[in-house]
Amino acid sequence: MKLICQKKTLAQSISTVQKAVSSKTNLPILKGLLLESVGQQLKLVGTDLEIGIESYIDAEILEEGSIVLSSRILGDIIRKLPDEDIEIEVTENNKTTIRCKNSEFTLVGQPAEEFPDLPIVEEDNAYIIAQDLLKNMIKQTVFATAIDETRPILMGVLIELKEQGIHMVALDGYRLALREAKVRNEMENKAVIPAKTLNEINRILTEEENHEVKMFFTDKHVLFCMKNTRIISRLLDGEFINYKQIIPTEYKSRVKVNTKDLLDSIERASLLAKEGKNNLVKLSIKDDEMIITSTSEIGNVLESIQIDLEGEDIDIGFNSKYFIDALKIIDSEDIYLKFTTSVSPCIIKPEDNDNYTYLILPVRIVS
Amino acid sequence: MKLICQKKTLAQSISTVQKAVSSKTNLPILKGLLLESVGQQLKLVGTDLEIGIESYIDAEILEEGSIVLSSRILGDIIRKLPDEDIEIEVTENNKTTIRCKNSEFTLVGQPAEEFPDLPIVEEDNAYIIAQDLLKNMIKQTVFATAIDETRPILMGVLIELKEQGIHMVALDGYRLALREAKVRNEMENKAVIPAKTLNEINRILTEEENHEVKMFFTDKHVLFCMKNTRIISRLLDGEFINYKQIIPTEYKSRVKVNTKDLLDSIERASLLAKEGKNNLVKLSIKDDEMIITSTSEIGNVLESIQIDLEGEDIDIGFNSKYFIDALKIIDSEDIYLKFTTSVSPCIIKPEDNDNYTYLILPVRIVS
Repeated sequence: MKLICQKKTLAQSISTVQKAVSSKTNLPILKGLLLESVGQQLKLVGTDLEIGIESYIDAEILEEGSIVLSSRILGDIIRKLPDEDIEIEVTENNKTTIRCKNSEFTLVGQPAEEFPDLPIVEEDNAYIIAQDLLKNMIKQTVFATAIDETRPILMGVLIELKEQGIHMVALDGYRLALREAKVRNEMENKAVIPAKTLNEINRILTEEENHEVKMFFTDKHVLFCMKNTRIISRLLDGEFINYKQIIPTEYKSRVKVNTKDLLDSIERASLLAKEGKNNLVKLSIKDDEMIITSTSEIGNVLESIQIDLEGEDIDIGFNSKYFIDALKIIDSEDIYLKFTTSVSPCIIKPEDNDNYTYLILPVRIVS
Repeated sequence: MKLICQKKTLAQSISTVQKAVSSKTNLPILKGLLLESVGQQLKLVGTDLEIGIESYIDAEILEEGSIVLSSRILGDIIRKLPDEDIEIEVTENNKTTIRCKNSEFTLVGQPAEEFPDLPIVEEDNAYIIAQDLLKNMIKQTVFATAIDETRPILMGVLIELKEQGIHMVALDGYRLALREAKVRNEMENKAVIPAKTLNEINRILTEEENHEVKMFFTDKHVLFCMKNTRIISRLLDGEFINYKQIIPTEYKSRVKVNTKDLLDSIERASLLAKEGKNNLVKLSIKDDEMIITSTSEIGNVLESIQIDLEGEDIDIGFNSKYFIDALKIIDSEDIYLKFTTSVSPCIIKPEDNDNYTYLILPVRIVS
């Protein structure tokens, strides 16, 4: 293989595919990136066998071929080179020379044949979604996935594709995040995508221009196609929880409150709460005021916020972390909090939109 | 104690004095900050018994007094409060209430009497220096202090004060950094200030306006006085090395080279060198070219730089880290490298100024 490409595009491409490379792998070949000529393009591939990322960049291909080079070393080298043309040449025994202006690196690569093939996903039935919408949907759900591995299915986000729209749902036993969007497509499907995959996609989406993403599914895999990037991930096995029956449809008290005020107050209250064990903050809602308190060995705090209350007064306790997580990703200036009793879930909804539902289980207050 | 002060100034002051607080201390009182009313000012103090930092801010003192509050908790709380007036009130049993807008925190403090007194340094004989000059002198020397504790005196920077100027010197057995400046003062002295102290001073100096610093010395301590901040540090005991006899005054080859070009090339060369053990890069200087090479198990690199050479050709090896450290802090566009033999020290000097001298010992090349 022999080719010439631009430093900037190569560096960007390496940084994208590196997101699939795990430093913890025991298979040396997976610490490498595959470089392969494809027509007049250079394809780069990184994978940890769970996620695979392919990136295509324009290059002047002088001689076809392929090679696997250490992801870390290659990335470090290309980043440090000046912003000029880079020549990559593979000679005998996988010896690879990288030339740029006054620099010449010689690395020993590994044969491309040893690099695992990514799963094949037929691109015959696309579900199309705008990049910024997908990014927002990921941001508003993925944080609510379970971290512990006792119920693996909860470590992913359920994605439901219907003709009229798309739903994404995550839950971990303490809270649930549901984001809906109206997207017209002909395909129906549902699948559970690992949180790790969605986090990587979220990071890659920021680096691309505002375009469409095509999603393709098989029973086992999902493929995301962006402009120059393809991300293939396995899906999680098993049935997701029937989340609809968890979400209450009625309430006895509805509070309207400024999102930022509530976030700031709960963050301050949790400064002391986190010194304890359960991050407990108490909300005492009465008339036009919400009092937030928290107590720990080192002291206590009292916060007061102006609210609009419809319905009954209520005292209720929460793990502040679950509140803060949600308040950080809701864009609406005001939100509604809906309560039934002090031992039933609280629902958070943006004031200006019906596309988001967040549910938190309360902590029983011993008074 | 009862007082009102502004959130912004208090937060800034806390962040300054926190630099003296060690999270590793076994003495609970040292995890706290002392707050004390002094006239119409609030004094904050943090110390780890090696360094003490005092900061003064304007406050409306409604009742005199003092208290010690957890540094971390107090810092977290004040940072999170809105940008408004803050009221601090100490009542019985060291109970302290912090009020701001709709927030009220109650903390249990510790009695101020338990907080250690900082050493007393008489302010009768000041050595005065501009903040930005002091900052630059610290930056150009402190990185060359020794890290390992086998020779404690080398963990500090020697500061020599003379009528005509000031010298700061650091060395660690592999390299030496000497920064000189012309400052007119009446005082003569020399002392070795711990690198840790200078690093903290360097960080605090960025946050203050461009003013003077006054330095006062006793046998054991140094006091730095800035506008609202006083830093007291112990000095290191013992005799510093007679550094002047280490610096060669003659050379056989002098190379003029662009600082940035050399830094970039050595950084690239060291990408592979650091995979080995000693960061070895080789410089081969001949006519108008410097070839920098490095070789390791995973590959090798060759860099070429245009230079101006006066004198003999030379091949010489270095630990790239010691070169990179110096090239990063030299402001001059070009530098001179002076060599005698491949086993004698190399001297780096800025091209546009005679105030800085950096010496590196070479690594013997086995060829």
